[in-house]
Amino acid sequence: MRTAIYPGTFDPVTNGHLDILHRAIYLFDRVIVAVASESNKQTLFSLEERQELLRCETSDMKNVEVKSFGGLTVDFARECGAVALIRGLRAMTDFEYEFQLALMNKKLAPDIETVFLMTKSEYSFISSSSIKSAASLKGDVSGLVPPNVEKAMIQKYNKMV
Amino acid sequence: MRTAIYPGTFDPVTNGHLDILHRAIYLFDRVIVAVASESNKQTLFSLEERQELLRCETSDMKNVEVKSFGGLTVDFARECGAVALIRGLRAMTDFEYEFQLALMNKKLAPDIETVFLMTKSEYSFISSSSIKSAASLKGDVSGLVPPNVEKAMIQKYNKMV
Amino acid sequence: MRTAIYPGTFDPVTNGHLDILHRAIYLFDRVIVAVASESNKQTLFSLEERQELLRCETSDMKNVEVKSFGGLTVDFARECGAVALIRGLRAMTDFEYEFQLALMNKKLAPDIETVFLMTKSEYSFISSSSIKSAASLKGDVSGLVPPNVEKAMIQKYNKMV
Amino acid sequence: MRTAIYPGTFDPVTNGHLDILHRAIYLFDRVIVAVASESNKQTLFSLEERQELLRCETSDMKNVEVKSFGGLTVDFARECGAVALIRGLRAMTDFEYEFQLALMNKKLAPDIETVFLMTKSEYSFISSSSIKSAASLKGDVSGLVPPNVEKAMIQKYNKMV
Amino acid sequence: MRTAIYPGTFDPVTNGHLDILHRAIYLFDRVIVAVASESNKQTLFSLEERQELLRCETSDMKNVEVKSFGGLTVDFARECGAVALIRGLRAMTDFEYEFQLALMNKKLAPDIETVFLMTKSEYSFISSSSIKSAASLKGDVSGLVPPNVEKAMIQKYNKMV
Amino acid sequence: MRTAIYPGTFDPVTNGHLDILHRAIYLFDRVIVAVASESNKQTLFSLEERQELLRCETSDMKNVEVKSFGGLTVDFARECGAVALIRGLRAMTDFEYEFQLALMNKKLAPDIETVFLMTKSEYSFISSSSIKSAASLKGDVSGLVPPNVEKAMIQKYNKMV
Repeated sequence: MRTAIYPGTFDPVTNGHLDILHRAIYLFDRVIVAVASESNKQTLFSLEERQELLRCETSDMKNVEVKSFGGLTVDFARECGAVALIRGLRAMTDFEYEFQLALMNKKLAPDIETVFLMTKSEYSFISSSSIKSAASLKGDVSGLVPPNVEKAMIQKYNKMV
Repeated sequence: MRTAIYPGTFDPVTNGHLDILHRAIYLFDRVIVAVASESNKQTLFSLEERQELLRCETSDMKNVEVKSFGGLTVDFARECGAVALIRGLRAMTDFEYEFQLALMNKKLAPDIETVFLMTKSEYSFISSSSIKSAASLKGDVSGLVPPNVEKAMIQKYNKMV
Repeated sequence: MRTAIYPGTFDPVTNGHLDILHRAIYLFDRVIVAVASESNKQTLFSLEERQELLRCETSDMKNVEVKSFGGLTVDFARECGAVALIRGLRAMTDFEYEFQLALMNKKLAPDIETVFLMTKSEYSFISSSSIKSAASLKGDVSGLVPPNVEKAMIQKYNKMV
Repeated sequence: MRTAIYPGTFDPVTNGHLDILHRAIYLFDRVIVAVASESNKQTLFSLEERQELLRCETSDMKNVEVKSFGGLTVDFARECGAVALIRGLRAMTDFEYEFQLALMNKKLAPDIETVFLMTKSEYSFISSSSIKSAASLKGDVSGLVPPNVEKAMIQKYNKMV
Repeated sequence: MRTAIYPGTFDPVTNGHLDILHRAIYLFDRVIVAVASESNKQTLFSLEERQELLRCETSDMKNVEVKSFGGLTVDFARECGAVALIRGLRAMTDFEYEFQLALMNKKLAPDIETVFLMTKSEYSFISSSSIKSAASLKGDVSGLVPPNVEKAMIQKYNKMV
Repeated sequence: MRTAIYPGTFDPVTNGHLDILHRAIYLFDRVIVAVASESNKQTLFSLEERQELLRCETSDMKNVEVKSFGGLTVDFARECGAVALIRGLRAMTDFEYEFQLALMNKKLAPDIETVFLMTKSEYSFISSSSIKSAASLKGDVSGLVPPNVEKAMIQKYNKMV
């Protein structure tokens, strides 16, 4: 049995993330969505909210679990017995950052492989931050995030005003 | 009659911005320079100062207007009856950010087209922020911004000391 | 009245090309699709066939004309009284080639502006050559080219065997 | 049991290819190295020689097979019952070509996933063609290809003189 | 006699920096490592500590001096009588930033040339910030920085807890 | 005394090449322009013509010599007693090719350093091939190449008709 982890901040989960996840579950026996508890940036949703939104969207995928983690990603991968880290590649600017991260992770944990999957082209230019930026100004982001996530974002931004 | 808007922070307007504007007025009947009132970053010049510097430099262009806006850029474009958003492409690192922005704007407003124009090569590696960075250390930025803007920057930085 | 030309080899026209054309006709009063008669590469379709396929797909667009040209693109643009050259940007590798071309054209004809439009993301990673490569190996390219073009490609490749 | 194919021209196999293969065999139960029988470019080694060099270098890897194929890569993947296509990413210029290829393959075969792995940084700037170019001018390419491959290249280039 | 300066923040010096320095001393008669006293970002090590770590690592290189500077880099270069600014290129994302910086510096000081050297591929994807990020989470960064620097980082991060 | 070589095809020499050369002669005691005798591509000018055009343009630079070479660039560099290979960086697409070449050359000759210089921004998007392409269609390339080179190109293309 092979386990992979799919680490990220997921603030919030987008249709692009879910697309990657749907691809990953065909390649591995178990996929753990690893939600980072620490972040350099202030998040819109709390760690609990981010996990809750993910659990809601992945409830029908049998071999997916949602967990939070702190510290080095590769240390968490080892705790999970994972052989691979999954990363979604959307576009070229991601690429070098991801390459640097993959090489650093290989140095820190030679036994864990980084596996890159590509999103559908219609998701290749969206990111959590561009979606938040549009939603905060009342732009319509339906189709970019699941309906539940859209609702949660609208609530958040209404409270802020 | 076709209207286009040219949105940005313009903190301050550079010769690169003016080069794009000179190109745009041959393609559209009316061009509205749309100065963003909100910005993630602290600006050097106030919204009023940024507009004033722009008005001064565009006073001899008949079909150009300078306006400020808040909220979604495409909402402002619609208010203006614009068919196009003008963006200047300088270099490759701009490209993906602009691509992402254009696709998000297309999703938010399918009726408004993003039009990219390229600056002259001598302006292709300058930006408002690199110019501010040089000017703040007393570097000579003549030729990169209009003389009035240069004067205004020097005044600002002298006051700060 | 403003005229723009949309130059290319169009061997054959793809849905990405038609997407750009649909955007261009809202920005200009007349758009001339300029089919290059000379090419460094051997084309699959003859100049006449490429124009015929384009005319068939653009017959319902009022302000579009299909013409062939030789020599410098900017010389043809001037003959047509065009103020702009339209180019579609799909992805980053296009970018520098297009930038170089735009600057050379600006040097050769300072009075003609290059205007870049971006394709829908689902067309952003297709090109005539990748489509021909798939079709030549009997891959299904429906949805990437119009049905008539697909039929014409299949006929071509069947004859070659 | 999950099978993946690793397609390429392998003219000749490099240490970079073998590095990717060593990573892939931890992620899949069976990996088929798929050597393209057709190529746009003239190859240095014949199809048989390319397979022979690969078999020699992979003889000690239990779950690796070397096969040749023609036609669409995804058709061959299906014949093999593969769930994934493995591609090595070395550097940024690879990226968009690979992205385009992956999206075209997804269109042609939605059931087969493209999986990207990254080579060690010391292999990230070598390619079969740069190695051939150096070897043809009697440059020392030891460390970039296995010793057997180096010997075979030297023999080839000596015969050409 | 030709002098070059090698400017940076060096927070802290990495094996990649030292690799560039080893290359530079073969090309110039004197190389001054110019440590920036001001930085937009909070540094981990103080200006004195950064210089001390550099002095320790370069003590056996005869024609190297470590100095701090404020203000414009080119002004400091002139004070030193330097003909060149040395910059290390690691990867593509560096490239445009460095290009912009080089052109701005050329505008500010036409008499001083920017010279780019490339690091070994094994250092091409490390940076001071990715190393600090790993070390702060107790990742093993040996081989990426000199032993003394590793020790200093561990001490810093232990104090922070 | 430090010698550097500046290798290339120079078919023909452009103002961008001469800009790099003007920068290089301030950094080295002797610069040898190394004209490649072999090329994958058919050249417009013969090896003798390319050298002649270069000699004509560099006759007033004291420490510049023009020589032809075959075989590995680094072998020629060693014959010349050079410590450095000079390469001009124009734009991002150059970058990875140059990076790959530099690393291969470092592997082949660890004692010779590749030094990158950047052209003026107005030359950053021209290349010998784009200039030839424009000139062959009777485009005006004055300002991009020296007058003598322009004349020689026009003669070549007139003879071809």
